[in-house]
Amino acid sequence: MLGVTILGNNSALPAFDRHPTAQVVTLDDHLFLVDCGEGTQVQLSKYKIRWGRINYIFISHLHGDHYFGLPGFIHTMGLLNRENDLHLFGPAPLKEILELQMRAAGTSLPFTLHFYALQGEGELVKTDKFRVSCFLTKHRVPCWGFKFEQVKAPRRINIEKARIHNVPAVFFDRLKAGDDFITGNGKVIKNAIVTDPAPKPKSYAFCADNQYHDEMISKVSGVDILYHEATYLKDLAERAASRFHATTHQAALTAKHANVKRLLIGHFSSKYDKLEIFEQEAKEVFPATEIALEGATYFV
Amino acid sequence: MLGVTILGNNSALPAFDRHPTAQVVTLDDHLFLVDCGEGTQVQLSKYKIRWGRINYIFISHLHGDHYFGLPGFIHTMGLLNRENDLHLFGPAPLKEILELQMRAAGTSLPFTLHFYALQGEGELVKTDKFRVSCFLTKHRVPCWGFKFEQVKAPRRINIEKARIHNVPAVFFDRLKAGDDFITGNGKVIKNAIVTDPAPKPKSYAFCADNQYHDEMISKVSGVDILYHEATYLKDLAERAASRFHATTHQAALTAKHANVKRLLIGHFSSKYDKLEIFEQEAKEVFPATEIALEGATYFV
Repeated sequence: MLGVTILGNNSALPAFDRHPTAQVVTLDDHLFLVDCGEGTQVQLSKYKIRWGRINYIFISHLHGDHYFGLPGFIHTMGLLNRENDLHLFGPAPLKEILELQMRAAGTSLPFTLHFYALQGEGELVKTDKFRVSCFLTKHRVPCWGFKFEQVKAPRRINIEKARIHNVPAVFFDRLKAGDDFITGNGKVIKNAIVTDPAPKPKSYAFCADNQYHDEMISKVSGVDILYHEATYLKDLAERAASRFHATTHQAALTAKHANVKRLLIGHFSSKYDKLEIFEQEAKEVFPATEIALEGATYFV
Repeated sequence: MLGVTILGNNSALPAFDRHPTAQVVTLDDHLFLVDCGEGTQVQLSKYKIRWGRINYIFISHLHGDHYFGLPGFIHTMGLLNRENDLHLFGPAPLKEILELQMRAAGTSLPFTLHFYALQGEGELVKTDKFRVSCFLTKHRVPCWGFKFEQVKAPRRINIEKARIHNVPAVFFDRLKAGDDFITGNGKVIKNAIVTDPAPKPKSYAFCADNQYHDEMISKVSGVDILYHEATYLKDLAERAASRFHATTHQAALTAKHANVKRLLIGHFSSKYDKLEIFEQEAKEVFPATEIALEGATYFV
């Protein structure tokens, strides 16, 4: 299971009761917080997210609308006596900022906070269940996107067929790994006969803030859901470029060329009260587009 | 005119839709922001406060629930092209924190931000209209309270009586200053005959976070409105002391001994859903007590 819950779909200026960027990615039973704009801890409570289970936080860049809620959230976890380690990935200066704030407050956290400074592109975490990697976006300050992927599951044993072909249970682990079984008299039981393929691993890419550029296409190629900012409507491509942001059409073009399954757009400028037109415009280029609505969860 | 509008009446943990500490003091046509917990900018908008007119911000101490909304608020003022100078008073490390955040974001503000590090006690600002001073409270980290006072107005001329006694208009400024008028033939017209006393200057004291201690009494003596935290009900005096906070009774005792006119209590612990009992308990000691309710303005 892979899904993303939107906590904030607005750009920097608060407006229309929309909130700055924050999302929770749920991958099987793991929760990841992606960006943490001011007010995120209240949004997490409002949408009843069991945030005690968040063990990884990813901060894309150090514009305030993407992390000003982080110090408060970390502090709240401390007050509530969190015990589990917390793994925080973000631009290098974030560590210094948090340390300075904690020193000034005389705060000592009751849990271990591991900080990992983002550098370049590549894998950040890998377990037997999931893999998170980062990639550079194009923005006014160093900025990263994140890709969340299920790790390829083992093949699934078809118990009935395995019995028919007399494959002993002790060989099942090797069946899962894809090996053929060879019987005592040398007969080969092809793996595909007694197993079913694993479900295709699911993937989600979060593009953070990003000025439209072609190199993004290969970075998010083929994901099941792509989140791409669409700060402006299509008529403001020039303004979008000058501010290192994207328009509806640009987000949709990226989705189309990257051949993703679905596109979610967000980070809407405070200029705009109504959001329907964002979806309409993006659909002109990429029909499988939805607006990222606060409180909604989008499942692969 | 002197009043205080409450934007947040809760302590550190968000709860029950109550917000962390922030208030706006209105003194004649001046607005002062006092503390700026996370979400303050949204609260300012919610309560329709014309925050473009806030030229002074006072931060009591560097626990997050008193300032984590400040970076976002300053940033928003920048995005909205504020031009007026902004004067910020707070504990010294706040400057470094803000500078680090602005550097990381590549932010350059379109207005001048003057930072003044709080040190000791005494006057912070004085104009011909108002005076703001700070005093130390007793807390786990360095913490200051703030006192806002109207500057004593000049005496008011009673035009009718001044005419009857033939005081020339050219002498009016000296009448306002309290001088007697001496006529050409040496007759003394006592100042009190031709002027009325100025209205008594109004005053408000904000005690920030404060463990109960006697020395506070003289610091806030005689103010029209005293805001004192009452994080806990009276039965938790021990916990209050251990966490450098106060109870309802302790806040009320301070108000009583300091002989203030009215007491406002706030900074309620997230343990408590209902607040009525806070008022009941404080009134047992100091009847002129009110609960600081978010969105409400308390005028002297």
